[in-house]
Amino acid sequence: MSSSIKKAVVLVSGGLDSATCLAIARSEGYQSFALSFNYGQRSSSELTAAVRLAEFFGVAAHQVIPLGIGQLGGSALTDHTVDVPINGVVADHIPVTYVPARNTVFLSYALAWAEVLSADAIFIGVNAVDYSGYPDCRPEFIEAFEKMANLATKASAEGNLIRIRTPLINMTKAQIISEGVALGVDYALTVSCYQANTAGQACGACDSCRLRHKGFKDAGLEDPTVYFSPPLYV
Amino acid sequence: MSSSIKKAVVLVSGGLDSATCLAIARSEGYQSFALSFNYGQRSSSELTAAVRLAEFFGVAAHQVIPLGIGQLGGSALTDHTVDVPINGVVADHIPVTYVPARNTVFLSYALAWAEVLSADAIFIGVNAVDYSGYPDCRPEFIEAFEKMANLATKASAEGNLIRIRTPLINMTKAQIISEGVALGVDYALTVSCYQANTAGQACGACDSCRLRHKGFKDAGLEDPTVYFSPPLYV
Repeated sequence: MSSSIKKAVVLVSGGLDSATCLAIARSEGYQSFALSFNYGQRSSSELTAAVRLAEFFGVAAHQVIPLGIGQLGGSALTDHTVDVPINGVVADHIPVTYVPARNTVFLSYALAWAEVLSADAIFIGVNAVDYSGYPDCRPEFIEAFEKMANLATKASAEGNLIRIRTPLINMTKAQIISEGVALGVDYALTVSCYQANTAGQACGACDSCRLRHKGFKDAGLEDPTVYFSPPLYV
Repeated sequence: MSSSIKKAVVLVSGGLDSATCLAIARSEGYQSFALSFNYGQRSSSELTAAVRLAEFFGVAAHQVIPLGIGQLGGSALTDHTVDVPINGVVADHIPVTYVPARNTVFLSYALAWAEVLSADAIFIGVNAVDYSGYPDCRPEFIEAFEKMANLATKASAEGNLIRIRTPLINMTKAQIISEGVALGVDYALTVSCYQANTAGQACGACDSCRLRHKGFKDAGLEDPTVYFSPPLYV
């Protein structure tokens, strides 16, 4: 293999968005290195999905990093004493499912690996349209992270800059799904639900399920999600 | 306790610089929350020193976060097949003891905890004078991180900004030591050596030992470090 092959670290949660990111990185000719995190998610089936997706896309390597972020507290997704909001509309305020500084931590690890690999890009599936009010999904956050990243590393000090790629940032969920289907993504492999069961079946009630289901509906495509109870909003 | 107490997350490695940072945060009236990382350092005595320092300063809490950064490779400090440079002068180039994106990862966790605690500041003992060529110790990196951090969090979206404090950034090692002694730091509790033994005794040969010893000498103070072999540079 030539050293001129473009490499990208792709953050893969196991959900719909990151699966689409993997497909986009591949379609642009990147050799992909999948990076996932085990941070005490309620739903371990999300990580199982990440492993399936990494295999499906034939990535060059897949690392699952254990994070101690749960021990810092502060989120319904890692603090199992806090309830997940059920069948809510997307709120104006920042939801309790927010994990403190999550994307900052994720991107920092991606940056570390990108430096080791001499990768050109980091792909992250953030979205500013259906973003549920998470501050670290906004374009201005991503731009600030990229600027910081290009001051942080040995590679950047030697002139090899890294780009933080957010191909989904201005797409609706329906557009993301349409793009992914066109690129061959099998969304049955993905898990979006905040409280999926161990078989990867979805609750059909949480905000994430609701956004996903609406996405398929708006795209005019059949939702391949398997629910463990009838979706509340169908 | 009043909610108006100023809180700070202080990164504590167990070394001389972070001990001084803890003392400075205390002298400014901050309630300190010590944050350390276990990332496969060669020298576990550094973490033992961090625990001793947190007790010595009576911090409000001390968290030691296990990091998976070692599994990404790329550094002599975590990759035990790479030799630590011995008795070298501080090199013009970036040394092999550099850990990819280390301060970015450390500060990201500090940001997560700061958000949970509603802390006002993060203290990090980076130094641009005796900094050994690490890009993530430069003032422009810190400024870029602070800017990113204030776009990243729920707290920042609500107007509660966080400051990244680097009180040592323009100080020589001798100035750091003098300041710390004036604030009551017992440097015998600290470990700087890249390859200290389990008792916390230093090699007296690595770059970190050399910089530390020179600092005490330049400050006109006795070096309380215990060496397991005679220092090469005395």
